[in-house]
Amino acid sequence: MSAATGRLRMGIVGLGRLGKRHAGNLAYRVPGAALVAACSPVEEERAWAREALPATRLYDDYADLLADREVDAVWLVTPSSLHAQQIVDALHAGKHVFCEKPLSLDLAECERVLAEAARYPHLQATIGFMRRFDPSYRDAFEKIEAGKIGRPFLVRSQTTDQNDTDGFFVRFAASSGGIFLDCTVHDIDVARWLLGKPRAKRVFAAGAAVLHDGLREFGDVDNGVAICEFEGGKLAMFYASRTQAHGNDTHSEVIGTSGALVVGRNPRLNRVEIYDATGVRNECTPSFFDRFEEAFLFEAQAFVAAVLSGGSAPAGASLADAVEATRIGAAMRESLLEGEAVVL
Amino acid sequence: MSAATGRLRMGIVGLGRLGKRHAGNLAYRVPGAALVAACSPVEEERAWAREALPATRLYDDYADLLADREVDAVWLVTPSSLHAQQIVDALHAGKHVFCEKPLSLDLAECERVLAEAARYPHLQATIGFMRRFDPSYRDAFEKIEAGKIGRPFLVRSQTTDQNDTDGFFVRFAASSGGIFLDCTVHDIDVARWLLGKPRAKRVFAAGAAVLHDGLREFGDVDNGVAICEFEGGKLAMFYASRTQAHGNDTHSEVIGTSGALVVGRNPRLNRVEIYDATGVRNECTPSFFDRFEEAFLFEAQAFVAAVLSGGSAPAGASLADAVEATRIGAAMRESLLEGEAVVL
Amino acid sequence: MSAATGRLRMGIVGLGRLGKRHAGNLAYRVPGAALVAACSPVEEERAWAREALPATRLYDDYADLLADREVDAVWLVTPSSLHAQQIVDALHAGKHVFCEKPLSLDLAECERVLAEAARYPHLQATIGFMRRFDPSYRDAFEKIEAGKIGRPFLVRSQTTDQNDTDGFFVRFAASSGGIFLDCTVHDIDVARWLLGKPRAKRVFAAGAAVLHDGLREFGDVDNGVAICEFEGGKLAMFYASRTQAHGNDTHSEVIGTSGALVVGRNPRLNRVEIYDATGVRNECTPSFFDRFEEAFLFEAQAFVAAVLSGGSAPAGASLADAVEATRIGAAMRESLLEGEAVVL
Amino acid sequence: MSAATGRLRMGIVGLGRLGKRHAGNLAYRVPGAALVAACSPVEEERAWAREALPATRLYDDYADLLADREVDAVWLVTPSSLHAQQIVDALHAGKHVFCEKPLSLDLAECERVLAEAARYPHLQATIGFMRRFDPSYRDAFEKIEAGKIGRPFLVRSQTTDQNDTDGFFVRFAASSGGIFLDCTVHDIDVARWLLGKPRAKRVFAAGAAVLHDGLREFGDVDNGVAICEFEGGKLAMFYASRTQAHGNDTHSEVIGTSGALVVGRNPRLNRVEIYDATGVRNECTPSFFDRFEEAFLFEAQAFVAAVLSGGSAPAGASLADAVEATRIGAAMRESLLEGEAVVL
Repeated sequence: MSAATGRLRMGIVGLGRLGKRHAGNLAYRVPGAALVAACSPVEEERAWAREALPATRLYDDYADLLADREVDAVWLVTPSSLHAQQIVDALHAGKHVFCEKPLSLDLAECERVLAEAARYPHLQATIGFMRRFDPSYRDAFEKIEAGKIGRPFLVRSQTTDQNDTDGFFVRFAASSGGIFLDCTVHDIDVARWLLGKPRAKRVFAAGAAVLHDGLREFGDVDNGVAICEFEGGKLAMFYASRTQAHGNDTHSEVIGTSGALVVGRNPRLNRVEIYDATGVRNECTPSFFDRFEEAFLFEAQAFVAAVLSGGSAPAGASLADAVEATRIGAAMRESLLEGEAVVL
Repeated sequence: MSAATGRLRMGIVGLGRLGKRHAGNLAYRVPGAALVAACSPVEEERAWAREALPATRLYDDYADLLADREVDAVWLVTPSSLHAQQIVDALHAGKHVFCEKPLSLDLAECERVLAEAARYPHLQATIGFMRRFDPSYRDAFEKIEAGKIGRPFLVRSQTTDQNDTDGFFVRFAASSGGIFLDCTVHDIDVARWLLGKPRAKRVFAAGAAVLHDGLREFGDVDNGVAICEFEGGKLAMFYASRTQAHGNDTHSEVIGTSGALVVGRNPRLNRVEIYDATGVRNECTPSFFDRFEEAFLFEAQAFVAAVLSGGSAPAGASLADAVEATRIGAAMRESLLEGEAVVL
Repeated sequence: MSAATGRLRMGIVGLGRLGKRHAGNLAYRVPGAALVAACSPVEEERAWAREALPATRLYDDYADLLADREVDAVWLVTPSSLHAQQIVDALHAGKHVFCEKPLSLDLAECERVLAEAARYPHLQATIGFMRRFDPSYRDAFEKIEAGKIGRPFLVRSQTTDQNDTDGFFVRFAASSGGIFLDCTVHDIDVARWLLGKPRAKRVFAAGAAVLHDGLREFGDVDNGVAICEFEGGKLAMFYASRTQAHGNDTHSEVIGTSGALVVGRNPRLNRVEIYDATGVRNECTPSFFDRFEEAFLFEAQAFVAAVLSGGSAPAGASLADAVEATRIGAAMRESLLEGEAVVL
Repeated sequence: MSAATGRLRMGIVGLGRLGKRHAGNLAYRVPGAALVAACSPVEEERAWAREALPATRLYDDYADLLADREVDAVWLVTPSSLHAQQIVDALHAGKHVFCEKPLSLDLAECERVLAEAARYPHLQATIGFMRRFDPSYRDAFEKIEAGKIGRPFLVRSQTTDQNDTDGFFVRFAASSGGIFLDCTVHDIDVARWLLGKPRAKRVFAAGAAVLHDGLREFGDVDNGVAICEFEGGKLAMFYASRTQAHGNDTHSEVIGTSGALVVGRNPRLNRVEIYDATGVRNECTPSFFDRFEEAFLFEAQAFVAAVLSGGSAPAGASLADAVEATRIGAAMRESLLEGEAVVL
């Protein structure tokens, strides 16, 4: 933290589409934060930073940013395959670290990061499961904590994207880890969070490539379903899709012994209803960007507040949470490929 | 009532579109009723009756049906201009009578029927404000009675039809009494019923012929709005339209000191929601027939039950209720034409 | 069919709660049907029939009803364990037969009935999966047939009951077949129907006894989830529950390549919305009786119409459909008990 | 504008509850703006500014702030009775001005400000009808502009607050101008905006003090309804209330010749639905602060962008719009008091 201003000096790494959004938040909308540095190997992205961000030091090499002693924390929005090593490097450099999900698609590497981080208990290390910061998910979590639905025992959660005829995710399939590790991992984290972090016992998954045949060569599907059994009789059902017609429809339901909460069903774009010859309708959020705009902001605010308060508890999902979500997602992928239930 | 069967012997008069529906209900779906006679001057309608109804005696002259001593009650679905005299004739013939709304468009004639009916207190005489028998309106009424919204003080109610490009109601404008007496009269009855029958003090109305210029020569409009002030600080707002795009949207709202009830907003056709590239939508009820199918049945059941139980209270709207609704609707028409509030 | 009246002469068997409802429909609300006989071993139920039904011949023995030559079709609302033999007996007696689900909980017995029925192709034999006759499910089916959602590939469907503190279904657990054969069998039929009858390949199920420990001794659960994979990349997810707080919430969703349809989500009791200090809410259907009242009527009308038209196609679910639903449900039960996916 | 930074240097005046919110937006969330000064006669509010705002010059006297040559624009969140003179003073001092509604409750004073402002066409002067900046209202406006509902002809709009048992607005009644000038003035502006600024011809209003008797001595009501007729057959209906049970329910509907749009009906607090023994419900926005949080931010962004772009068109409601809304609201108040329609 800057002794002069009391603000947390942040360095953002990666300025793609999502990185730009995070940068704007950190620069202008997070009390207590000062975005002092940015890093991208792409000249065009650094040019954007020169225009759009307040006076920040720009780097094209991550090592240089880590060497910047006026940076207290790094914010990683880089390709997934780099996450694990970059987190470890940040911790080695004595910096707090926020990293976009996933931690890693490789369980062994996840475990390695977890072990390494244990050596730096005074440093905040959080994985960006932003749904935990969406105000509606947050409200549901608090209602559950307050006992409003009794004992929660079942989560049904989905991450479904509007069909992308451009097929970006098909090209991305080789490195995405497949639909369960790319999409459902969010729902797995939601389920664990809302059910009180029960240990997973067994998963079963199935799926189909309904519109995007190109996924098959990667063992991937564009629509996947899964069940996860946890200890203590808790359950979760998941659905992930790349082919929805109406928009990005990311929602969750948690059922308890005396009630249930649904978060985000009918992904209304806004508060407008349209009455016309086709009926009464609302438009839908086209992408997760539109749906989770506030969540991205609030997770940044929470991270900064957590560091500034000096507490050791991560503001959102811990590395251990991320490892567990990856373990479950990887088991789903295995189940999909094998056609059998997988015991964890 | 038939001494042999204990059933109320009904004669239906008028077998147009709505008459056929009532006939089907009375013939097959009303416990305690026997449809024993039908009357229509139209041979085609009588032919329908021969096919579709159980053994009923058919008449082409209303007087002949009234002379049928095996008929206990008549059910009038005739042109509005005939209602008043036909009700009086039925009472003179010693028969209970149900008559589709309106009682009459002419207030003096309304009063005459009311006076005449007072001489036959043992005969049931009901005007068909079917909304009182719709299960959802009934539920709202009962919740109000039970104090669930505190003291009700404001009703907002509307009767709005899907635009009819055929322009039936333009041709009908000469005899319809105008939009307030034809449509809003239902909402007026709803407001009085839900607010506890307060006395109306003043009305103001306005409107426009938005799509159907032909209405202007009749002093009528295709969209009308009105306010009615009742004694005791109770209020009502009304909207009537002939030009809706999405369907027949007939709904009401009643606001009380500790809550409010809305009946029928979003006129869902059924329980299906459609998710597609335009958003999330439901289709709507195209006509009041679709919306109030159950209400037409239940009002018939209530009428028959009321007569069989021997009580003197009308099952639904009494003649006096119909007179009062007509008085208020006529004042709205006057207000529309004069551009001033009308004191009742 | 009665030569004199052209009506199908029906005999109902079993006059419990659901039987009474069917009897009322057949007696008064099904064009072309005449309820001429009823059978129950319970004197109290026969007494009810004497009061509530039109002149019907009453039997206390099923064999006597089958011997009644003036009965064209039987309508079975008897205990599940009797269904299979009663269907066979009805066919042997030359009578059309409608039977409430399930056909049988035992697959071998199901197959036996199927084989027997094949010898009577001129007789209508239908199992009562009433959801096929619910107007909203029917609308969804027709929209799918019309290509409105492209190619359907995923069904999510649930049958969830309001929690019954009385624990009826715990006492019933010994003979119910468990939650998947008792409840989910409806959803399985819906999925097969809406997906075009694909062949099931594999199922996985899980569950927990969340509130009703007494189920455990029967290997049953009060909340169960399942996935079914069909040939051709089609999928289904199911949820069944005995413990909902808000009511009977039976709904289905079908997802296609260009849209999706949801049938019955938010199990609104009626068209009333309540605004009060707790928010904006609607009440819910307490039981499947309330939700499917129309469906029970329409399935009776469809059965009678199918017989009278002389066609050989069953009006709703055929015996073969019922066998297949049972096969899938039984595999789910096996999966639940074994903790492994079951290949069909 | 600061030559050095290119940012618009703002001075905020008034730091009550709403002023604090505006100050936070201007300080941290409006690109292109620098909040450089704040003014309040209340020491406590200035103390808040010292803590919460970035380095701003603090004044206790409005004249001193106007004399600050490093202030380009003032942002007035002061008591209503001061607005008119403070706007004029700001313009005299060569500063752009944003002022919270109302311009003035006195029509003559409104006209005087309008005339004065005409002498400063290069200065931006906007009245804070924030609903124009709410994303959902904005979406509706754009859909209307794009012809999605044909020709709009009727607006129904309401401003209804959750009942305040503390009775703040009763104490405020002497100076609020009454419910129509205090609340409905927003809806009037919405109606004019969405209907294309038609000229008002006639209004009628009615109301009642349902829960707050203390309003009567001020000629005010806690529930008011009104109709406004515009030229060209356009219409508006309004409802204002201080006594809602469920929350602040501010919504609008615009009906056109080929469709309708509803903005904000069912004032959902967030995306959570609660399923419990009372049914399915959502919680509601308790106050306009919660409902219009984004709108307050976006109106600030739009104001600043408009000034920086050098255009002369006001970003939102012009002074002339505010004058017209006041004229109509004042006529409603007159109609309420007189019990007659008022011609404009």
